[in-house]
Amino acid sequence: MIPNEAKKRLIEVVGAENYDDTKAGRLVYSYDATPQFQSLPDAVIAPRNTQEVAEIAKICNEYRIPIVPRGSGTNLCAGTCPVEGGVVLLFKHMNRILEIDEENLTATVQPGVVTLDLMKAVEEKGLFYPPDPSSMKISTIGGNINENSGGLRGLKYGVTRDYVLGLEVVLANGDVIRTGGKLAKDVAGYDLTRLFVGSEGTLGIITEATLKLIPMPETKQTMLALYQDLEAAARSVSKIIANKIIPATLEFLDQPTLEVVEDYARIGLPTDVKAVLLIEQDGPKEVVERDMKKMADICRSEQAVSVQLARSEEEAEALRTARRSALSALARLKPTTILEDATVPRSEIAKMVKAINEIAAKYQVKICTFGHAGDGNLHPTCPTDARDRDEMERVEKAFEEIFSKAIELGGTITGEHGVGAMKAPYLEWKLGPAGIAAMKAIKQALDPNNIMNPGKVFAKSTRKRVVVTR
Amino acid sequence: MIPNEAKKRLIEVVGAENYDDTKAGRLVYSYDATPQFQSLPDAVIAPRNTQEVAEIAKICNEYRIPIVPRGSGTNLCAGTCPVEGGVVLLFKHMNRILEIDEENLTATVQPGVVTLDLMKAVEEKGLFYPPDPSSMKISTIGGNINENSGGLRGLKYGVTRDYVLGLEVVLANGDVIRTGGKLAKDVAGYDLTRLFVGSEGTLGIITEATLKLIPMPETKQTMLALYQDLEAAARSVSKIIANKIIPATLEFLDQPTLEVVEDYARIGLPTDVKAVLLIEQDGPKEVVERDMKKMADICRSEQAVSVQLARSEEEAEALRTARRSALSALARLKPTTILEDATVPRSEIAKMVKAINEIAAKYQVKICTFGHAGDGNLHPTCPTDARDRDEMERVEKAFEEIFSKAIELGGTITGEHGVGAMKAPYLEWKLGPAGIAAMKAIKQALDPNNIMNPGKVFAKSTRKRVVVTR
Repeated sequence: MIPNEAKKRLIEVVGAENYDDTKAGRLVYSYDATPQFQSLPDAVIAPRNTQEVAEIAKICNEYRIPIVPRGSGTNLCAGTCPVEGGVVLLFKHMNRILEIDEENLTATVQPGVVTLDLMKAVEEKGLFYPPDPSSMKISTIGGNINENSGGLRGLKYGVTRDYVLGLEVVLANGDVIRTGGKLAKDVAGYDLTRLFVGSEGTLGIITEATLKLIPMPETKQTMLALYQDLEAAARSVSKIIANKIIPATLEFLDQPTLEVVEDYARIGLPTDVKAVLLIEQDGPKEVVERDMKKMADICRSEQAVSVQLARSEEEAEALRTARRSALSALARLKPTTILEDATVPRSEIAKMVKAINEIAAKYQVKICTFGHAGDGNLHPTCPTDARDRDEMERVEKAFEEIFSKAIELGGTITGEHGVGAMKAPYLEWKLGPAGIAAMKAIKQALDPNNIMNPGKVFAKSTRKRVVVTR
Repeated sequence: MIPNEAKKRLIEVVGAENYDDTKAGRLVYSYDATPQFQSLPDAVIAPRNTQEVAEIAKICNEYRIPIVPRGSGTNLCAGTCPVEGGVVLLFKHMNRILEIDEENLTATVQPGVVTLDLMKAVEEKGLFYPPDPSSMKISTIGGNINENSGGLRGLKYGVTRDYVLGLEVVLANGDVIRTGGKLAKDVAGYDLTRLFVGSEGTLGIITEATLKLIPMPETKQTMLALYQDLEAAARSVSKIIANKIIPATLEFLDQPTLEVVEDYARIGLPTDVKAVLLIEQDGPKEVVERDMKKMADICRSEQAVSVQLARSEEEAEALRTARRSALSALARLKPTTILEDATVPRSEIAKMVKAINEIAAKYQVKICTFGHAGDGNLHPTCPTDARDRDEMERVEKAFEEIFSKAIELGGTITGEHGVGAMKAPYLEWKLGPAGIAAMKAIKQALDPNNIMNPGKVFAKSTRKRVVVTR
C-alpha cells in the first residue's frame, strides 16, 4: 500500500495522468512473460524524465515503497513481476533515440526505445547493433540492459553487456550517476557500467544508455544442416569452433521443436529429422563464402543428411523468423510453457542435450530443446499445464535436475534470461554461499532499504542440494 | 608494522622462505613503474596456492594489515606502491598456464603468468589473446586484470576486461569465490567478474582466471602515414572509423616522440615530419588488402605526405617494437618521466592534441604525445626532473589542465593506466561526488576493514575544481 501522502507527492512529480492505481491498470502490470508469477503492484507510474525518476526514487526510499522498472515485460525470469508490490515504472515517455554518433560509432538512447527500432535506425546509417533477443520486436533497450539480454548473434558478437559503453542511473537514494562514456577505454574507478548491466533493476534505475555500434557486415549467408542424430549435430557445433570458425549464428532445434515451429510458421522446415542446425555467417563476401563452405564440409563429415544454403534473403529471413518464433509456437501446444536457459561450455553441448532427453524420459514430461548451440546456451522448453499439479511437480523436478547437470558440466543456471524471482532459489547452486554473500553485500551497499526490485536475484530460501565440487 | 604473532602465523602458512621482511627485500617492492611514489612494505610474501592466499587474507583481516597484490609492477598509477605499508603479495609460485582449451577457446591461468608467455603459448595452437599492453614482455596477467590493461589492439579487439570470462578471487574475509566460467553467456547474478577486473586489488585478490581466446587472424599488414600537420593526422583517424573501417592498430606519434624513439630504436623512422600514424589491419588476406588500400587513400586525402606499407614482417615488427618502446625511449631524456593517459571520444582527438600543445606552451613544459589514436587514448608524456620543484609544479598544473580538458571533451582521466594512488585526487572530476559515493559503498561492503590495497582509487582529499556540466 502506498500511503496517501506518498501518493500525493508522486502525483505532484509526474502529474495525475502518469499515475495509475486503478485495479485495471495495476492488473495489466501484475505479470510478465513468465508463467506462474503474478502479483499486483500498488501503482503504475510513467515518469517523463530523469529528474522525475530521481524524485520518485527519493519518495519511494523515504516510504520504503518497492520500485520495479519495466520495459515490455518480455523477460522469462519474472524479473518485472512486482512480487512485493510497490510501483511499476514505465518508460513510455522516455523512449527516444537521443543521438546516433557516426564518428564515434555510438547511439545514445532512453530506456524505452524498442530494440528493433534502434537496430533499424542505425542500419539506415550502415551501422549495426548486434544484440538480438528473440523478443526484439517489442523488447526495450532498458529491459535488455537490465537483463543483459543475449540472442542469436551472441557467439560472434557478444551480448548486451558488450555494447553498453555508458549509463545514466538513478540510485535508490535519488542520486543520479553517470558511468563510462563514448570511450573505447575508461578505467576511472570500478566498472559500474557492467555492474548495472544485468542487475535486473535491483541496484538502480537506468535512465539513459550510450551504446557501442559497429560497421554493418557487408554480406550474410544462411544454411540449414539436417541430422538424424542429435549428438552428431552437437559434435558439428564443437568441430566448427575447434576449426577456428566463429559463425554469426549457430542455432540448434530438435525434432519436437521443428514440428511445432513448422506447424506455426509453414515455411517448409523438415520435420522428419532428429535435429537441425541453422548456421549463418556475415562479413566480407569472400570470407562468408569460404566459411560457409568449410562449415558445410564439417557438417557433412559429421553425418548431416542434408546441408542446404538459403537460396535468397527472403528464405533466410523466413528461417530466422521461424527460429525466433519458437517460443510462440511452443506456447500454442499447452496452457503453460516453461522455457529455460541452462547453459554449458560449448564442448559439453552433446552431453547436455543427451542429459535433457534422459531427464525428460525419467520424469515423463515433454521437453523440446532449441537454442544457441554455439554459445552452449540451450532452451529446454516444457509445454505443460499449471493446473495439473502432479505434472507440474515432475516438471519442476526435471528442471532442477537440468540445472544441476548444467552446473556439473561447468555451466550456469541461466545464460541470458536472468535470475529474477524464478531462479533465485537456485542461484546458490552456481555461486556458493560466499558468492551470494558478496553479491548481497553490494546490493545492501547501494540499496540499504531494499526498495529496488525486491524479491529478485536473492531468494528468501534456497533449494537444498548436494553442492557439486568444482 | 606487523605484530610478531601475525608474522609467526603468516610464516606458518607460506614457509619462512616465502616471507621476507629484510630491509633489502622490502626496498625492492617499495615502488613500481610510477615516478615519485615510494613507500616501504612491512613484508613481502609469496604464497604457493589459493588456500595460502585465503589464509593470508584471514590473518591480515584480523590484524588489519594492508595487502598489496603485485605482478611485475609495470603499472603507471602507483597501483602497487604500498602507500600504507602492509604486505606485498608476489605470485612467483602461482605462475602456471593451467589449461588451453581448444574446444571452448579458453585459457585458464594463474595470476603470475607473463602476458607474452601466454600469447606465445596460445599462438602455438593457432589462437590469439589480443590484449597487448606495451609492458607485455614482463607484465603479468594478474596485473593486467587488476588494472584492466589496454594496449595497441584495443580499438578492434577491446581490452583485458573483454577477455576475462571467469575468476577465482580471495575476498578480504578469506572467502574464496568463483565467478563466471567457460561460458559465452552467464547472467547468474551480478557481473562480479567485470567488477573485479580493473578494481586494482582493492576488492579482492585474483588467484585464477579463465580467459577468452579467439582464432588467430590469418594475415596482417602494417603501414606508416606521415604528416606535416598534427590535426590532419587526427582527422585521418576519425575519417577511417567514420568510413566503417576498424583497423587492428591505429597509433599516433608526434614529432618530439618520433625523434626520441628513432634515436633509441634506430630503424629509420622519419623525424622531419610533425606526426606519424602507425596503422595495422589483420584478418583474411583479401579484407586486409582492401582495408589497407582504403585507409591509405583516406590518409592521402587528408594530406599525408607519405603513406608506405611495411615491406616485410621484420620491418613491421620493428615498427611495432619501436612504438612499444616509446616510454623507455622518452625515459632516457630526463631523470623523471611522467606519462599520462587522458582519453577522449575519438572524434575529439584533434581538439585534444591541439589543447595538449597549447597547455605545454602555457606552462613552458615539454610534452611529447603518442598513443592509441583509434581509441582516443593519448599518452601525453613529460620528460622532467623531480628535483626541479619549480618545473614540477608547472608539470602538475599542465596535467591537471589536460585532465580537465579531457573531461570537458567527454573523456576520462585514465583510459588504461588506472587510478591507483596517482590519479585518486582527480577521480571525482570524472565521477562526481555521487559516483564516488557509490564506488566507496561497494568497497566498504566487500572490504569493511580496508585492508585490500588501501590508499588506492579513493583519495583522502580531492583536487578542487569547477565541475564541468555535462
